[in-house]
Amino acid sequence: MPLIEVRHANSYDPTQRERIIAALTAAYSEASGAPAEKVWVILDEVQRDSWGAGGASLQARDAGGTK
Amino acid sequence: MPLIEVRHANSYDPTQRERIIAALTAAYSEASGAPAEKVWVILDEVQRDSWGAGGASLQARDAGGTK
Amino acid sequence: MPLIEVRHANSYDPTQRERIIAALTAAYSEASGAPAEKVWVILDEVQRDSWGAGGASLQARDAGGTK
Amino acid sequence: MPLIEVRHANSYDPTQRERIIAALTAAYSEASGAPAEKVWVILDEVQRDSWGAGGASLQARDAGGTK
Amino acid sequence: MPLIEVRHANSYDPTQRERIIAALTAAYSEASGAPAEKVWVILDEVQRDSWGAGGASLQARDAGGTK
Amino acid sequence: MPLIEVRHANSYDPTQRERIIAALTAAYSEASGAPAEKVWVILDEVQRDSWGAGGASLQARDAGGTK
Repeated sequence: MPLIEVRHANSYDPTQRERIIAALTAAYSEASGAPAEKVWVILDEVQRDSWGAGGASLQARDAGGTK
Repeated sequence: MPLIEVRHANSYDPTQRERIIAALTAAYSEASGAPAEKVWVILDEVQRDSWGAGGASLQARDAGGTK
Repeated sequence: MPLIEVRHANSYDPTQRERIIAALTAAYSEASGAPAEKVWVILDEVQRDSWGAGGASLQARDAGGTK
Repeated sequence: MPLIEVRHANSYDPTQRERIIAALTAAYSEASGAPAEKVWVILDEVQRDSWGAGGASLQARDAGGTK
Repeated sequence: MPLIEVRHANSYDPTQRERIIAALTAAYSEASGAPAEKVWVILDEVQRDSWGAGGASLQARDAGGTK
Repeated sequence: MPLIEVRHANSYDPTQRERIIAALTAAYSEASGAPAEKVWVILDEVQRDSWGAGGASLQARDAGGTK
């Protein structure tokens, strides 16, 4: 009964979410031997002004060319 | 100072949230001996299109009978 | 399929762990209406030198009377 | 590549978020020796009706003087 | 810069860990379009006496046939 | 009552842990205005064979020059 939790800053539409859930479940099941029907996946979108990398938010980096 | 964090896919109204917080705090305190006033609870609702089980989102399972 | 995750600084023996799992599951199920057999609980013990409160670890507070 | 995740019940505007990200990154880098450009920060705001302390939500405590 | 975190109750040897990391990274990258070199994976093994399902730990279920 | 949780792959001795807890608490308190005595910090060390970046564990990257 593994739990896979993803934090991501990009937005995904429902079709992409479905595809990501299916892909992670299949990949984990195949690599670990755990039955796919026992795998849980949680997708957790983080807003770009709430995700910092290197001391600045992704939003600030998008806007300002911090990199 | 234990921290209890709940991820759930069902929506709860404020009354239910209050009841869940009280119930988990009391149960934990009684079972562990930790003082109730030191227990923190965080409720974190996950949207049904962002929670996968067995390779499909709960939303898709609700809609389509994946199972 | 709610997931209840507990971070705690006290150590619990297997009997206490079993009791905490049972108590949280029953409390959550009763308060939320979710079926108990779908509830997951994860207990995650944090070492006292790795848990800070008010700027000092619990270990330092135990030793030094920071409070 | 450390990851610093903050759960907080107060709301912060974009300027405050930027300041918190910068401050935590600098503090961690200086205290640990890890390069600042490798530090990630995630800010996760929890609603006051979803954060319990001592068996009641912060919202209920705000309203009712539980403390 | 997505972060994929896995909680699992089975033990994996280093070869399996490497395979799981590679598989999840590739699957996520392909399904989401995120570049693989930006994907982080954290594997977090939970002891069987610390993971509850349906009110009993996995260890108790292993031993006792709770199911 | 903010909670700051750090996942890190480097090992820190007790003195470093104490310093990191103090530094993060002070930085957060100053940047956010939250009282330092209400800030919690949890340090969570992840083994290098359990932390993947770009599809390989840090351990494999250390050993093999994946980068």
